Amino acid sequence: MKTSSYSESVGIVGAGQLGLMMILESRNLPLSFNVYGGEKDPAMEIASRKYKGEDWEKFVDQSDTVTYEFEHVDRRILEYANKQGKLFPSIKSVDLKMKRHREKIFLRDNGFPVGEFVVEKNAEKALESSKKFEKFVIKRSEGGYDGKGQFYHNRMDDYPIDEEGEFVVEKFVDYDYEASIIAGRSVDGEKFYYEPSENLNKNGILIRNNTTLKDEKIKEEMRDIASRLMEKLDYYGVIGIEFFVVDDRLLINEYAPRVHNTGHHTLMGSNVSQFQNHIRAITGLPIAHPETYLPSGIVNILGKKLTLKESKSILKLGDTDIYDYRKEEVRRKRKMGHVNVVGRNERELMNKIGEIQRIMYGESLYDYI
Amino acid sequence: MKTSSYSESVGIVGAGQLGLMMILESRNLPLSFNVYGGEKDPAMEIASRKYKGEDWEKFVDQSDTVTYEFEHVDRRILEYANKQGKLFPSIKSVDLKMKRHREKIFLRDNGFPVGEFVVEKNAEKALESSKKFEKFVIKRSEGGYDGKGQFYHNRMDDYPIDEEGEFVVEKFVDYDYEASIIAGRSVDGEKFYYEPSENLNKNGILIRNNTTLKDEKIKEEMRDIASRLMEKLDYYGVIGIEFFVVDDRLLINEYAPRVHNTGHHTLMGSNVSQFQNHIRAITGLPIAHPETYLPSGIVNILGKKLTLKESKSILKLGDTDIYDYRKEEVRRKRKMGHVNVVGRNERELMNKIGEIQRIMYGESLYDYI
Repeated sequence: MKTSSYSESVGIVGAGQLGLMMILESRNLPLSFNVYGGEKDPAMEIASRKYKGEDWEKFVDQSDTVTYEFEHVDRRILEYANKQGKLFPSIKSVDLKMKRHREKIFLRDNGFPVGEFVVEKNAEKALESSKKFEKFVIKRSEGGYDGKGQFYHNRMDDYPIDEEGEFVVEKFVDYDYEASIIAGRSVDGEKFYYEPSENLNKNGILIRNNTTLKDEKIKEEMRDIASRLMEKLDYYGVIGIEFFVVDDRLLINEYAPRVHNTGHHTLMGSNVSQFQNHIRAITGLPIAHPETYLPSGIVNILGKKLTLKESKSILKLGDTDIYDYRKEEVRRKRKMGHVNVVGRNERELMNKIGEIQRIMYGESLYDYI
Repeated sequence: MKTSSYSESVGIVGAGQLGLMMILESRNLPLSFNVYGGEKDPAMEIASRKYKGEDWEKFVDQSDTVTYEFEHVDRRILEYANKQGKLFPSIKSVDLKMKRHREKIFLRDNGFPVGEFVVEKNAEKALESSKKFEKFVIKRSEGGYDGKGQFYHNRMDDYPIDEEGEFVVEKFVDYDYEASIIAGRSVDGEKFYYEPSENLNKNGILIRNNTTLKDEKIKEEMRDIASRLMEKLDYYGVIGIEFFVVDDRLLINEYAPRVHNTGHHTLMGSNVSQFQNHIRAITGLPIAHPETYLPSGIVNILGKKLTLKESKSILKLGDTDIYDYRKEEVRRKRKMGHVNVVGRNERELMNKIGEIQRIMYGESLYDYI
């Protein structure tokens, strides 16, 4: 897509759905977009300049600012961009995410609220350690997301008892609800915070979320944690932080050093989406202070594609928007898209979210995740 | 751009900025987009399938629905699509626009309010007829838009006195203000209306508009006229209608059988833009009943490109979005882009619009138009 002729260029590592949304949402900013990814990845199609394979040095050299849509990318690229002072968010914030136990320890050691946990060097020791908790979850330190590599006390059938490598044993948090905040900081040091959301996860994967939190104290605390965390991480750009809320107390579940699924609600009903604000923040363009005009939320499309009839029914609800990630292969648990929705008030929002889930999954959500 | 795999395809005749916005704004609908246009036109880049030159029959044959971004296109395509029952809006609504005098006569004969006018067969007779009006404007019947081909009583230097062909002599309307409405009708017969706007035109070209009209009676009348006009024109899709308001009375200036510059404010602060609702309406997808969350408006970028500094200043105002049409050649009066803006209230909106105009043009708007 023809983007701006201005000289400043943003390089995005990874050309998936999040990269695509960064570009589409920022297409009116005075910037051009270089993308490093696979030939057929969605963001490649609308890149100003495309890079792949061994082009990674050229990609960095020809970009004024480099960011990433996903933390599990070729580390050489991040290092090279970091050396040139072009990488945002910081390499530190990615490194901690490469191994779950490092993130946990960093958070605890810096005084952030996290649940009880123990780190072990292999699966067998982890299982042994888990005995100290009545309910627990054991997580592989590397490579897990969207519920992959997680083993719950009551579902241990697939437990890889002979596996070596770090495991994190967490006391199972019997939370009241899950919540998250999308925050950010511009390279000029200005911080911003989106309206926090309540999240519903099942089998470790986000089903829906909605900006209907009422507890002002909790929300203030989320902003405060986000602010301190961005400082500790030397963080610039948009960050997503997931929490458990237990007895009116917050525990950090994890952070994502990028735009985040629980921030997709900012695509509708907000003045400027998380995607555009991320790009503004890392390029030094004036950030938009988030305003949420109407209670907003999303429902993820998981393990299925919507039929035309389902799409029409969802559009018919009014103030809905369907993002189809156009992935060819449908797999159980796979995020195939999401639906944005706003309501004139919270009740209308929640009614619509319920309706969308019924249209999408009927009574059988668990057949898809 | 990879668009939906659903089988329904929309063909757009013309691949300029309006076609581009139709596709980008509708990219989440379950549709694919065929575009007929010039090789380098902006909408071609993101078309699902591209057509040009003599491909026009194939283009129509391979599209389920055909629409156009501009009425001055190859009539053969519209006729061919019309014969197949695929063309929306109706060919009638385009035909009337091909000659200004036909539109005027149609409106008058069907009981719509228009100013006094006379039609003459050449420029000389038109000048003769103009004597019956103290103030007048003579307009070429063919080929004029954005103030081109219009001659005002007090600026007759370039008047083409020897030219043959129809001219419309209009009594100059000393209006209180200009206004417009963006309305539409879906192929299922459902009508919808956006919040009307007040428009500021100079030298026949739109400078800015804003949804700040307060006179409920006038707004109701605009909706009523739009409703009746869509019926008389067998119209489906989005229509723009421009009015003069004189002593609390409405006169139609003209209509546009398509998405319209005075409807660009729907890109920000509204639930669904005119572009997406147009596509929904002509494809039979559920239309969105327009809601304007916040007072919104635009300022056109005319005869210049914004500098990076100007862009930053505009973004810094907050709740602004800059559309750069990425046209290479800058010409006086040429629409190079527009800026969207919303305000928490009407005063804030108008202050921001004033500020944007100052950033863009300083005190010298007339150097650019």
